[in-house]
Amino acid sequence: MPLIKGRIKEIVERAETPLERAFDLTIQALIVLSLVTFSLETLPDLSPRIRGLLSVVEVVTVAVFSAEYLLRLAVADKPLRYALSFFGLVDLLAVLPFYVAQGIDLRALRSLRLLRLFRIFKLVRYSSAIRRLRLALKLVREELVLFTCVTLLVLYLSAVGIYYFEHEAQPEAFTSVFHSLWWAVATLTTVGYGDVYPITAGGRIFTFVVLMIGLSIVAAPCGMLASALSEARRLEANSSE
Amino acid sequence: MPLIKGRIKEIVERAETPLERAFDLTIQALIVLSLVTFSLETLPDLSPRIRGLLSVVEVVTVAVFSAEYLLRLAVADKPLRYALSFFGLVDLLAVLPFYVAQGIDLRALRSLRLLRLFRIFKLVRYSSAIRRLRLALKLVREELVLFTCVTLLVLYLSAVGIYYFEHEAQPEAFTSVFHSLWWAVATLTTVGYGDVYPITAGGRIFTFVVLMIGLSIVAAPCGMLASALSEARRLEANSSE
Amino acid sequence: MPLIKGRIKEIVERAETPLERAFDLTIQALIVLSLVTFSLETLPDLSPRIRGLLSVVEVVTVAVFSAEYLLRLAVADKPLRYALSFFGLVDLLAVLPFYVAQGIDLRALRSLRLLRLFRIFKLVRYSSAIRRLRLALKLVREELVLFTCVTLLVLYLSAVGIYYFEHEAQPEAFTSVFHSLWWAVATLTTVGYGDVYPITAGGRIFTFVVLMIGLSIVAAPCGMLASALSEARRLEANSSE
Amino acid sequence: MPLIKGRIKEIVERAETPLERAFDLTIQALIVLSLVTFSLETLPDLSPRIRGLLSVVEVVTVAVFSAEYLLRLAVADKPLRYALSFFGLVDLLAVLPFYVAQGIDLRALRSLRLLRLFRIFKLVRYSSAIRRLRLALKLVREELVLFTCVTLLVLYLSAVGIYYFEHEAQPEAFTSVFHSLWWAVATLTTVGYGDVYPITAGGRIFTFVVLMIGLSIVAAPCGMLASALSEARRLEANSSE
Repeated sequence: MPLIKGRIKEIVERAETPLERAFDLTIQALIVLSLVTFSLETLPDLSPRIRGLLSVVEVVTVAVFSAEYLLRLAVADKPLRYALSFFGLVDLLAVLPFYVAQGIDLRALRSLRLLRLFRIFKLVRYSSAIRRLRLALKLVREELVLFTCVTLLVLYLSAVGIYYFEHEAQPEAFTSVFHSLWWAVATLTTVGYGDVYPITAGGRIFTFVVLMIGLSIVAAPCGMLASALSEARRLEANSSE
Repeated sequence: MPLIKGRIKEIVERAETPLERAFDLTIQALIVLSLVTFSLETLPDLSPRIRGLLSVVEVVTVAVFSAEYLLRLAVADKPLRYALSFFGLVDLLAVLPFYVAQGIDLRALRSLRLLRLFRIFKLVRYSSAIRRLRLALKLVREELVLFTCVTLLVLYLSAVGIYYFEHEAQPEAFTSVFHSLWWAVATLTTVGYGDVYPITAGGRIFTFVVLMIGLSIVAAPCGMLASALSEARRLEANSSE
Repeated sequence: MPLIKGRIKEIVERAETPLERAFDLTIQALIVLSLVTFSLETLPDLSPRIRGLLSVVEVVTVAVFSAEYLLRLAVADKPLRYALSFFGLVDLLAVLPFYVAQGIDLRALRSLRLLRLFRIFKLVRYSSAIRRLRLALKLVREELVLFTCVTLLVLYLSAVGIYYFEHEAQPEAFTSVFHSLWWAVATLTTVGYGDVYPITAGGRIFTFVVLMIGLSIVAAPCGMLASALSEARRLEANSSE
Repeated sequence: MPLIKGRIKEIVERAETPLERAFDLTIQALIVLSLVTFSLETLPDLSPRIRGLLSVVEVVTVAVFSAEYLLRLAVADKPLRYALSFFGLVDLLAVLPFYVAQGIDLRALRSLRLLRLFRIFKLVRYSSAIRRLRLALKLVREELVLFTCVTLLVLYLSAVGIYYFEHEAQPEAFTSVFHSLWWAVATLTTVGYGDVYPITAGGRIFTFVVLMIGLSIVAAPCGMLASALSEARRLEANSSE
């Protein structure tokens, strides 16, 4: 009995032998499948037949994920510790909405279903390539925090400035500082939807100044992440020698 | 007496003991609070009750900032020098609009209130993480100035070019070179609101050429800042060894 | 006879003597010409005279490409291997639509004509400058794969999130998760056409959070490619010493 | 007499003594002034009085630039060589439109006035900070050429692809491959005006694929220029030791 338990433990928790890898790949494929199913369900005008098929897929994936969760709980050295760990909670949240939804009315189900997406974090669990990214994030953590703060300051100052320039000319688009913040976000990230934009000469000159100063600040983290990743690559290459 | 003054001086100007840090954090929290209050006040359709609450917060924060300003003035070695320094003026401007606004009519108040935002610079005062950014900016200062000049030249030439291509087809969007400059800013920063864009074949080909040449020039400072920050990180690591 | 075959083989497959280079440049010019012809044919309201001229150019270029294909087949050491290689298939696909189109009706021709564009890959064949780019891509291949996966995850999570925030307010723009994905693509690449954008406060705050986190992830490969190219340049400079 | 000529030569061609620098700065200020004047003239609804003032400024600046041109011609060691050099021609083109415009009718004047903008290149002449940028451009010249070619290929393939996906659904926006090229430029540079965008599912999926592949290619030169500039800075620092 302990032998069988040990074998199951290896299959569930490791990814070295072909059988162990097959188990992991099956789970990952089912996660992707359940995400596709979830997306398809949001399509309007689905025929009852397809809705029925999607329900079957839903039941099967939830059954597999439930079995997997119970298995992990059974073979864990410290079951409670697993149940309260980040991935333990994610594994539980991936199946819980299905069971909870059966008892209560359907409208509540719709908002709870968002939790099913936490299943996507299970994919991360199986990926080992994420390690280098973590190292890179650690290298530039302080710079990222600093730039996030400066970005928030720039966004706020831009919003207040444009509010004073455009509020009178466009009281509906720039109703308050909060409405102006939406403009600041869309502009400084250069998304520029075109739903709000300055029309006064003062507002346009202000936008120009803000873009000249703010673009480098908002876009800087991209370059920092790229340079940190190449640094992480170099560090890993050195330590593996 | 001098002992008490010295103690207050430490609390106000340093940030090392728990008490000194608590003082700094309280002030910072109040600055953020007053910024939130200021933003909320711009919302339309606020109930009189909420307006009253916001006024109370306003009065309290101004009272604290005033007390802090007077304390700093009292404990400074050279009070006049502090009063005329950058942060001395910012501290004064953070509270002055409140007192001035009481005496004169309310319309003037609205434009003066913009000055309250200088309070945000007080946040910078307490942040030590800003040092590395300053070093990075010093490293690429010359390049940034050069690229700002080249960017301005590119923007101007783009505006004149598009004016000649589009003025006749869209006399309202491209009325003058100044109106075309607005197009140049929105296009070369890739914001692209969509309020003005070329419709003639010549104007579109010109836009293509301008983007191919101009994008690298306008976006270059972002990359330069990122590489300078990693250089600053390296320099700091070397000097601390 | 083998001497003549060997000479033709050199002309067709190498690019060293003036004659060999002239052959390559002629083919490249014809490829560009046929692409221009193809583009012109899509213009509406062409006069019959111009349509006739374009047909002549089409026939001539296809004749030359056919002759070139047969020549390559004739001089190849292993004709079957060439015929089944990537460039052998591209060479065939560049001329095949023309011959196939003669036998069947004209509507099928229109969709098959897309294959003619594979001719553009013949240009790549003659370019030697592409080598450094290949080296750079090899250096950052793993990072690119990782970031493509993370980008897809971010896009999917953004689409689901905005679907829950905006679906009720804008059922036509955010009909399903797939419609929301279009918004996520246009937003996180900062293209921002302005055909779909959030209008609820929740959707806008969510967009802000998504942009702050997602921009660095989606834009990171750009910086990685640039840094890898400079690394490739350095590696090549070292190995050529 | 030769002494005076030599003195004038120094004032015109060098920028070392205060007098020589004052001459250069005056000319630069006049160039900026004439550009501002030119821009103001494009404004509609100018009063006759302001139009008169702008004409005076125009006459004065042209007079000074003409005198400067003749001086340079007079003191040059090889006048013909100067007249045919790049800056000799630019200096001539900066004043020629004014004189030519007097003889012929006013409509021709408007198109010729564009040439006045070449005056802006005179600014470059006096700038020494441009040298490092030139070195950086030399370092990445090959990469820039390669990426410009790849960018053009990507733009062309994107245009043809979207033409096949969207032509039938939106025959007016995607009339031909050339119209689709405008979409490709606005999309891959992430400007995204919003005047043309795909509406079919196929077109949107194609746009997603194109953006995932194309963004890194189109944006790469920005990063390359930034890294080359830091390399140029390092090279200059090393050679000055």
